[in-house]
Amino acid sequence: MHIAVDAMGGDHAPDEIVRGALLYRAEGGVAEIVLVGRDDTVRAALGTSPRPGITVVDARDVVEMHEHPSSALRRRNDTSIGIATALVKRGDADAVVSAGNTGATMAAALLTLGRIRGIDRPALCGMLPTTKGKPACLIDAGATMDAEPNNLLQYARMASRFMERVHGVDRPTVGLMNVGEESEKGGRLQQEAHALLAGSTDINFFGNIEGRDPLRGTTDIVVCDGFTGNVLAKGMEGVVDVFREGIRNDIFGGLLGKVAYGFALRGVRKLRHRLDYDEYASAPLLGVNGVSVVTHGRAGANMVRHAIGVAERSVSQGLIAVLGEQSRIGAA
Amino acid sequence: MHIAVDAMGGDHAPDEIVRGALLYRAEGGVAEIVLVGRDDTVRAALGTSPRPGITVVDARDVVEMHEHPSSALRRRNDTSIGIATALVKRGDADAVVSAGNTGATMAAALLTLGRIRGIDRPALCGMLPTTKGKPACLIDAGATMDAEPNNLLQYARMASRFMERVHGVDRPTVGLMNVGEESEKGGRLQQEAHALLAGSTDINFFGNIEGRDPLRGTTDIVVCDGFTGNVLAKGMEGVVDVFREGIRNDIFGGLLGKVAYGFALRGVRKLRHRLDYDEYASAPLLGVNGVSVVTHGRAGANMVRHAIGVAERSVSQGLIAVLGEQSRIGAA
Repeated sequence: MHIAVDAMGGDHAPDEIVRGALLYRAEGGVAEIVLVGRDDTVRAALGTSPRPGITVVDARDVVEMHEHPSSALRRRNDTSIGIATALVKRGDADAVVSAGNTGATMAAALLTLGRIRGIDRPALCGMLPTTKGKPACLIDAGATMDAEPNNLLQYARMASRFMERVHGVDRPTVGLMNVGEESEKGGRLQQEAHALLAGSTDINFFGNIEGRDPLRGTTDIVVCDGFTGNVLAKGMEGVVDVFREGIRNDIFGGLLGKVAYGFALRGVRKLRHRLDYDEYASAPLLGVNGVSVVTHGRAGANMVRHAIGVAERSVSQGLIAVLGEQSRIGAA
Repeated sequence: MHIAVDAMGGDHAPDEIVRGALLYRAEGGVAEIVLVGRDDTVRAALGTSPRPGITVVDARDVVEMHEHPSSALRRRNDTSIGIATALVKRGDADAVVSAGNTGATMAAALLTLGRIRGIDRPALCGMLPTTKGKPACLIDAGATMDAEPNNLLQYARMASRFMERVHGVDRPTVGLMNVGEESEKGGRLQQEAHALLAGSTDINFFGNIEGRDPLRGTTDIVVCDGFTGNVLAKGMEGVVDVFREGIRNDIFGGLLGKVAYGFALRGVRKLRHRLDYDEYASAPLLGVNGVSVVTHGRAGANMVRHAIGVAERSVSQGLIAVLGEQSRIGAA
């Protein structure tokens, strides 16, 4: 198995990306890693010792975090994400992983790999930490705008197979993001999606959930349209940032704060551990015809390592074939 | 001026609601308060001393937090929120304030007071704390599902007048909640609303903002459809809850944690103060033909007091007339 890793994408590229690949291999990862990026830069980050199982493919260009993804990809044919995705298309790699511009990773996957037959729209399946200590996934975290009820049903099915196969969750529960519990809540999209989800036998439908539920781990899967998912994920992340800064600067800033920190160290670690999601901070793009995993733009080596692990398990579990098979059953 | 307060609505009713009314008066509030609820219960909470400027109107029933709002209101005609809203309709009160079932407060306002002419759909204007130390408002926080682009323009206009008149913000900036900065981002609703907002001269349009922006105070007003607003507000609140519990139990729990707390006290207060939004934790329902202010279900006395203050300023500033006037201009 070969996994193409966009070595140039992300806030800490290439160093943390390359370190993540090395960590993945050092921890016993079975896939061979193809680092895609500027040959000289990537080799400098790799160092001079021999790196078995890691090769470099040159790509001179990169889609920056704030570029317009699809126009960048159309104009330039030697971007790291474009070349990494093309490796999957050609069969030279089995999956692609990137911490770079999410829009570019999605656009490259959609343009180069295409959709799985029977899946109308792709969806980003973002993993979230929960206070139950197990991960949940939010689908769609922003791949598709203007979703229709049937798209939400397809998201629920794809995420169910993903959570079963890749995260080993038995009969994962599916919650429909809504403004209240009752089936008639929400707008047209939610009301119609509720009926479709409730009538579907290949998912374990829990019912409607609300904005507070994803973090509580009420369900293993949170289904919503990509606009809502994107706004919700960023909104929650914004609050996390404010509290992280507040704990660091307000509570433990200053002299007394530093003393307090000494006494509170164990507790701080406990809270950090509770909300740590390095292990599953990845968002596979489901519905495209190949394994494509996005990870956080701020990803450090450990997160990159785990994202490669998610890609590896998606390949070894034959996720794409499973999704193709169920979508044919679903359409029948 | 008279303000009808639903004395039975909210997790801490009637005690904290009654205390909030007393606090409002004690701090120099000019409006007379009409407490609406079970006569005996409310009088017991009021105590035996004379309470100038506070009267009680009996209502035998209450819409509980988890009841279906409009069916409860249709079936029962002696609920505290129904009677409080009817006082406004009859002119016996100038505004209604409730910490109870938000859906019931909205349904009562819409059924009893009706809409302002020229406003197609009402919107809940939820106040948020920001790290800039000033409040922002999120409109619509959940009053209307399936909003159309023109509704979002009306929300932006109503919130602009509200922030100018009631919160004294000069030329408040308006951000459109979206998944990216560029004008072509989002779905049909956001793209069309962006064009309407950009072409409107009676608002100070900033452009698109993202899920992290409301808490950062990027704009004074955050405009979105009620489904997104409700999910975002609850999602952010869920994260706040997790951190509050984490700080209390993980960081400062246990023996060492308690020692740490002693040293960190000043910092904890600083963080708490930064995120304290008692002062503006109210959500006026804009677009209905009367002043109706919702506050948090968990509201304590201080929050109730400030919500009454928001209602008072809305009345004294002639907010309903201002909204009616601008909607006639907007429609012209």
